[in-house]
Amino acid sequence: MSYVSPIKIKRRMTVSDLARQMEAVKVLGPGRFGKAVRILGEMFSDQHYCKMLSIAGPIVPGGLRSILVDLVDKGLVNAIVTTGANVTHDMLEGLGHRHIVGSEMDNDETLREKGLSRIYDLLVRQKAIEHLERSTRHMLDQIPTETRRNIATFELLWHFGSQLKDKRSLLSVASRKSMPIFCPGIFDSMLGLDLWTYSQLKPLFINPFKDFSKLVNLSYEAKRVGAIILGGGMPKHHVLIANSYRGGVDAAIQITLDRPEGGGASGAPLEEAISWGKIKKRDSLVTLIGDATVLFPIMTLGALENARK
Amino acid sequence: MSYVSPIKIKRRMTVSDLARQMEAVKVLGPGRFGKAVRILGEMFSDQHYCKMLSIAGPIVPGGLRSILVDLVDKGLVNAIVTTGANVTHDMLEGLGHRHIVGSEMDNDETLREKGLSRIYDLLVRQKAIEHLERSTRHMLDQIPTETRRNIATFELLWHFGSQLKDKRSLLSVASRKSMPIFCPGIFDSMLGLDLWTYSQLKPLFINPFKDFSKLVNLSYEAKRVGAIILGGGMPKHHVLIANSYRGGVDAAIQITLDRPEGGGASGAPLEEAISWGKIKKRDSLVTLIGDATVLFPIMTLGALENARK
Amino acid sequence: MSYVSPIKIKRRMTVSDLARQMEAVKVLGPGRFGKAVRILGEMFSDQHYCKMLSIAGPIVPGGLRSILVDLVDKGLVNAIVTTGANVTHDMLEGLGHRHIVGSEMDNDETLREKGLSRIYDLLVRQKAIEHLERSTRHMLDQIPTETRRNIATFELLWHFGSQLKDKRSLLSVASRKSMPIFCPGIFDSMLGLDLWTYSQLKPLFINPFKDFSKLVNLSYEAKRVGAIILGGGMPKHHVLIANSYRGGVDAAIQITLDRPEGGGASGAPLEEAISWGKIKKRDSLVTLIGDATVLFPIMTLGALENARK
Amino acid sequence: MSYVSPIKIKRRMTVSDLARQMEAVKVLGPGRFGKAVRILGEMFSDQHYCKMLSIAGPIVPGGLRSILVDLVDKGLVNAIVTTGANVTHDMLEGLGHRHIVGSEMDNDETLREKGLSRIYDLLVRQKAIEHLERSTRHMLDQIPTETRRNIATFELLWHFGSQLKDKRSLLSVASRKSMPIFCPGIFDSMLGLDLWTYSQLKPLFINPFKDFSKLVNLSYEAKRVGAIILGGGMPKHHVLIANSYRGGVDAAIQITLDRPEGGGASGAPLEEAISWGKIKKRDSLVTLIGDATVLFPIMTLGALENARK
Repeated sequence: MSYVSPIKIKRRMTVSDLARQMEAVKVLGPGRFGKAVRILGEMFSDQHYCKMLSIAGPIVPGGLRSILVDLVDKGLVNAIVTTGANVTHDMLEGLGHRHIVGSEMDNDETLREKGLSRIYDLLVRQKAIEHLERSTRHMLDQIPTETRRNIATFELLWHFGSQLKDKRSLLSVASRKSMPIFCPGIFDSMLGLDLWTYSQLKPLFINPFKDFSKLVNLSYEAKRVGAIILGGGMPKHHVLIANSYRGGVDAAIQITLDRPEGGGASGAPLEEAISWGKIKKRDSLVTLIGDATVLFPIMTLGALENARK
Repeated sequence: MSYVSPIKIKRRMTVSDLARQMEAVKVLGPGRFGKAVRILGEMFSDQHYCKMLSIAGPIVPGGLRSILVDLVDKGLVNAIVTTGANVTHDMLEGLGHRHIVGSEMDNDETLREKGLSRIYDLLVRQKAIEHLERSTRHMLDQIPTETRRNIATFELLWHFGSQLKDKRSLLSVASRKSMPIFCPGIFDSMLGLDLWTYSQLKPLFINPFKDFSKLVNLSYEAKRVGAIILGGGMPKHHVLIANSYRGGVDAAIQITLDRPEGGGASGAPLEEAISWGKIKKRDSLVTLIGDATVLFPIMTLGALENARK
Repeated sequence: MSYVSPIKIKRRMTVSDLARQMEAVKVLGPGRFGKAVRILGEMFSDQHYCKMLSIAGPIVPGGLRSILVDLVDKGLVNAIVTTGANVTHDMLEGLGHRHIVGSEMDNDETLREKGLSRIYDLLVRQKAIEHLERSTRHMLDQIPTETRRNIATFELLWHFGSQLKDKRSLLSVASRKSMPIFCPGIFDSMLGLDLWTYSQLKPLFINPFKDFSKLVNLSYEAKRVGAIILGGGMPKHHVLIANSYRGGVDAAIQITLDRPEGGGASGAPLEEAISWGKIKKRDSLVTLIGDATVLFPIMTLGALENARK
Repeated sequence: MSYVSPIKIKRRMTVSDLARQMEAVKVLGPGRFGKAVRILGEMFSDQHYCKMLSIAGPIVPGGLRSILVDLVDKGLVNAIVTTGANVTHDMLEGLGHRHIVGSEMDNDETLREKGLSRIYDLLVRQKAIEHLERSTRHMLDQIPTETRRNIATFELLWHFGSQLKDKRSLLSVASRKSMPIFCPGIFDSMLGLDLWTYSQLKPLFINPFKDFSKLVNLSYEAKRVGAIILGGGMPKHHVLIANSYRGGVDAAIQITLDRPEGGGASGAPLEEAISWGKIKKRDSLVTLIGDATVLFPIMTLGALENARK
């Protein structure tokens, strides 16, 4: 029988020190948080791990963009699957626009009149979105027509990344590092509207099968695959399903506020994916109930401390 | 000033009777439920409303498939946007397979060994999924190669629907009624794996831009658009963003267990979409916190009663 | 092996008809909702069941007061355990005050200035609360001093109920029917403040042990106990713990939006209570994830239909 | 206009360093977490702040007991309002028993047979609970009968604390430091059952009005009051309502997984309490959506670092 060990906070404790104490609790939230920091640190310190990061929710506009950029830059993430929204917001910042502090109590009709659009308590200017449309058109024009006739989202985003002047853009660093960003729902975003508009005038065929082939190959060739799942949605499921060809991921961490009872994939416990052959085994999994925008920065700091040792 | 009116349960009360009492409460859950039933009934009884239904989560395998089929059959839904999973499960049932009652406490490693895959407390046989793969291949072969070179998901699903023998399949009735089912994340499902495998051997190019053009046209040409949003995910956002070209939907009902604070689109209040021009105005919106698999059947019964009057 | 059966909506279907179809789904939300309606109907139609209803959250101000009153009046509820807030709001309405329709977006500082207090989108006048204070003082004065020196909450609330002129008050009908309303957290409410103030001036000793003895006796003497749990909090736990002396309740339904992972009693699955001896067995339990203010009226209508047969 | 600033993770960053970066994000989870750490640090470093801590959920058995003990020992918490469960579990550990690591998938009927009771994935032996009953009886016997005839929960718990040999017990340190622990729902716990049993045999009258007078006095005499709210339930509301006599608390932090839409006090935003006069103003409030067992240790570490400067 194993017992709960209490957390003892000490002077000059690092996040990784605290996380170790929390893992010793073994139960409830602390046990899961501590385990997640340990697994993340193991992924970071093992170059044989192909780290696949899935991102849903406003991770990029919500202040975590630089964290992602640094992880990609250091080679600590090997593939990203995300929503069209996160790509859109990275490009907006890459074009020099900033996200504005609003309030979840703002009146949306008033915001609309002022040309501001809202994500919870975060605002973006419609003018920035119009600028994105013009820039996207211009950047697409720089891609050879033949390439545009059959392009994967990861290729398209590399093209965009190489054209953005902001070197702290996620697309830019991904392009420089040849790290693929997959965006299976790219059509479903402000950027997606711009791509669709362009496709009505000039040749542009996005081929999601090319994306999937690339993702499956990455998974298949990796010695080990670790999934880092921020939020649910299609990005989560996409990472997992692509790994079914290799018999599942070897380790996975998920942070979510979604609940399991509705039966949706977003809130499903990772264990469920074992029955589908998308995850290998029980003991390297951890689901943390919480807000990824709060927990991921803290976990990353702790895991980096562990990985440096 | 307006006051809360209490609910009075009477003998021989229909759902619509109860919903009217609940709307009179005006506040909290009852007020929202009652309002949702009223708005849904208005949509059902007004042929100038283009009813766009977005579905995320296990609505089809969770016992609501026949409800959807009947709504489509009666012309009460004019477009569906859903996940690859719901389409997959409709096809599985369309091929004669049934969903099995399991438990959320089942051991997933044991299930894996038994060839069963789990969605919360619901199971599906891997053999059924293998059958789907063979059938999909066969059904794709029946589609002319030229058509396969540039096909929208709604077209693909009509082709499948016309080939399924089960006339109570959602794809089948959609095909018969020429009602489009859009599946922007079709790649991200068991069916998607089969499509990808096929595309490695024979020509198959799915063109999401064709889907989006169709969806935008439907929205643009409609006198009024009403969105019925079950769960969040890409289906929810897709319906809303497609309506931004017409200045937003005219009415919307959303049922979700997702929360707003994380900033993700799934849990966002409908009001937020006003600031993006995806919804027109405040007074025809209602968000109901709850499980769509429970609430939608009840609401539909109530709304149909209202619409018949 | 058991299979999922789809729901079929028909013309002239009652709530109990629909609930039977939903129970046949057996899984996810529909299966649970259907089962809950059936169990509730069994409780209602079996006079050997002592029905203990726990209520947390704004059930009384949220429009469900009359439903409770009718259930008590018909003898379909045999004990209620609730919060001080629900008792407070019943007395406010019993004194002739009404709850006002507000908005969850209201500015609370402005409301404060206007003398309005908020519960989500529901408002109450501070003047009503002041009236309650005066009335409480007056009603307490009518209780003999000796009685006031050692009084249980259920006795106190019977005294109040008998003095309220509004015969549609929950306290009033409970008093008339000698049905106990237990309020273990009575101190923690606006009414509680009034009781405390009074106790500083005149003799008033509330003895929660007397309440507990009464509740344990009710449980102990009942042939069967059924728990109907709306929301979590102390009321939920109180009903369950009082039943540990008889080896647990025989059947239980809980409706909650609280989640289990935090480990709190409110969101705990009912099964957990089996390990504590508070619930007897697995097969007469059902947890429904949802808002009780929406689901309980519907379930009650369905269960009453069943009970009449 | 104010802009979102991204988080930059650096080498040798403390929790307080990271929290400052997160506060600069200003929006969503990071902004709230950073603000909460700052406010908590301000409370810790200002001796004019009366820090009132409310605790619901398994904070003590879930590994945070030592954190609470250290905060009380250093005078960084001036009053605690908690559930009977947390007091029960503190006493169990104080008597030498430990909490056992289980699983949320454990079969509760099997656990019952083995004499184990479950809190999510945490177990406690029934034998330990029986030991508590005997010890409670013995400890009550040591309290003079006259004292027992009219005793507040905070007094009772001081008596227990002074008799426990474990000096790392929360009750023990509270007793030593004369810091009151209020337990308005003490009746509703395993300890409560023991108190009730005792009261059937020997004089024991617990007087919650004495508790409330003490709590109101603490609030009234404090220059500033800061509320630290872990979970909801009666403890949360109790701290807030007791402060209504002084016009509300000056600052408040709440960590919860409960949602607001149901209208219950647990999930209510702190702003709502302004309309009731329980909180003074908007700008020193922060609600953090998350699991307190995960977030509170991290926030405490960060706030202590800030307070030391």
